[in-house]
Amino acid sequence: MSKFWSQVVRELEPYVPGEQPQIDGLIKLNTNESPYPPSPEVIKLMTHDAIDRLRLYPDPNSKKLKNTIANYYDVTAEQVFVGNGSDEVLALLFMAFFQQSKPLLFPDISYSFYPVYCKLFGIEYKTPTLRDDFTINFDDYASENGGIIFPNPNAPTAIGKPLAEIEALLQKNTESVVVVDEAYIDFGGETAISLVDKYPNLLVVQTLSKSRSLAGMRVGFAVGNVDLITALDRVKNSFNSYPLDRLAEAATIAAFEDDAYFKACRDKIIATREWTVKQLEALGFNVLPSQANFVFVKPSKNNAAELAQKLREHKILVRYFGAARINEFLRITIGTDEQMQRMVEVLKSA
Amino acid sequence: MSKFWSQVVRELEPYVPGEQPQIDGLIKLNTNESPYPPSPEVIKLMTHDAIDRLRLYPDPNSKKLKNTIANYYDVTAEQVFVGNGSDEVLALLFMAFFQQSKPLLFPDISYSFYPVYCKLFGIEYKTPTLRDDFTINFDDYASENGGIIFPNPNAPTAIGKPLAEIEALLQKNTESVVVVDEAYIDFGGETAISLVDKYPNLLVVQTLSKSRSLAGMRVGFAVGNVDLITALDRVKNSFNSYPLDRLAEAATIAAFEDDAYFKACRDKIIATREWTVKQLEALGFNVLPSQANFVFVKPSKNNAAELAQKLREHKILVRYFGAARINEFLRITIGTDEQMQRMVEVLKSA
Repeated sequence: MSKFWSQVVRELEPYVPGEQPQIDGLIKLNTNESPYPPSPEVIKLMTHDAIDRLRLYPDPNSKKLKNTIANYYDVTAEQVFVGNGSDEVLALLFMAFFQQSKPLLFPDISYSFYPVYCKLFGIEYKTPTLRDDFTINFDDYASENGGIIFPNPNAPTAIGKPLAEIEALLQKNTESVVVVDEAYIDFGGETAISLVDKYPNLLVVQTLSKSRSLAGMRVGFAVGNVDLITALDRVKNSFNSYPLDRLAEAATIAAFEDDAYFKACRDKIIATREWTVKQLEALGFNVLPSQANFVFVKPSKNNAAELAQKLREHKILVRYFGAARINEFLRITIGTDEQMQRMVEVLKSA
Repeated sequence: MSKFWSQVVRELEPYVPGEQPQIDGLIKLNTNESPYPPSPEVIKLMTHDAIDRLRLYPDPNSKKLKNTIANYYDVTAEQVFVGNGSDEVLALLFMAFFQQSKPLLFPDISYSFYPVYCKLFGIEYKTPTLRDDFTINFDDYASENGGIIFPNPNAPTAIGKPLAEIEALLQKNTESVVVVDEAYIDFGGETAISLVDKYPNLLVVQTLSKSRSLAGMRVGFAVGNVDLITALDRVKNSFNSYPLDRLAEAATIAAFEDDAYFKACRDKIIATREWTVKQLEALGFNVLPSQANFVFVKPSKNNAAELAQKLREHKILVRYFGAARINEFLRITIGTDEQMQRMVEVLKSA
């Protein structure tokens, strides 16, 4: 530890992302990426003219992209904020809304980046415990708070919340910002964007990294009341004026415009998931009900860590967390049919 | 102002970037972009395979890019940090090193994002006054401080500091981090990267947005002692695991590898600058000595604002700040020979 580090750096406990190893022939089921390439429209954007224009700064407000997202979700462009991956959007909203005296609330088992942001920005937090069946109990979120955030579906459990329950929470919790982190919403959940006009304290975050096959392009966005978006813009314009590059903006627009392709990929992933669930259940696994592009499963022999290692030997990567309450579970991304068949074969032989 | 805003959002005074208007035929000399496209190697990266791989996250550590930069500057990859534009690199280093009890020092006339970061992260600062000739006087930086940052060449003055003066400062200032912000170093200055092995508190920041024609791709980097880079990594991994997208990383590698193209563009810009300086001096302008890809000039009739407007009417955009001490100056980016000829014509007719 160097004498030049600020106190905040000394105390950080950085987030550890899933591995991104460079191994040929790897079946990569550990970071919830899509097994399908982005829309074929994306390659068409990579023209000589577009590349020559990389000499110019992008539009700092990504106006065209905001219009596209606004049209898609039937909101106004002023209700949309975009950032360099939903992780950046989350970081900025933690600064904009949760840096305050009352504690933030999020589930004890949830996206492990939330406590990391809290440490970075000096935010106090409480983590209500999930029920034994790993569902969120919104009754635990009734105390005075400086904000509420949860993924829907939750990660790594894959379990979704019905929109009616989220609305009931919003009716009760009116004095702080409620963030619904919808990274996996497209695989079976119902987005809360339809509620933003009714609840001025609701912010919905989505990413292009999962259902739209653009993890490598780094784009995320938030939709909410104009007042909340204005706050995010103020923070963003005090941090980095141009978070989205020209190609990222263009690729995201193409991904939204090619809705038929998006739906075809999503439907394939959902069908593959249902097949995978049946196979794993036949093997005696406890599979939590998934509305995501991954499944969270407990092998019958309580040998999750061992199975992760065995799969790895067969060049199949899944995610094992080893944390309290979930150390007998594996998180498995839904790949192609062929990839899942291969994984099931290996598990059968284990 | 909404009740949901945190105190920090309420108090922000966001940075205002130069305009990015969408006007056909505009001669854009207001944001110091390169008039030349990026290396022709960049378009070759936009293959079907590369675009299909956008479904996958990038390497969170951008290892290949760090190796490329390390090779180029004869340092190790562990001495390199990369980010989403040098603005993000600056934001993260303000958090990592300047969030502390003693005040940060930077020139009164300098990059106007510095005080914005200070506000965002609650950093106190002092701004020693430039000399009357707009040069930095390092004698003013001898007081106890929590860090020192200055651009070299300075912006918007374009005036550079010799490396020997920077080394003398480092010899005196050993207890806090010194950041040399070298956004414009390639146009005539001498980089301080050669000093990082000698001074463990020196951090050098550069950008791909100017001399390497990739403003639209958002890439910046820092070079320094491993301890400083580790601190930056800790903050980055608590903020956004994957700040650099796949295409940005690949394009940056290509930009560094095509060194002949880089040097040819840089030399053209320097030659055009020298021609422009002579023309403007012939028109009676006071032109500050420039080591950058822009000139900072004072028209003889003290009519800077009026000239900016006149140029605008001719679809030529330059930057007018209107701030104290520099409200009679214009900052003019060096474009192509043709663009500068056109600008000089308009000024002659003014």
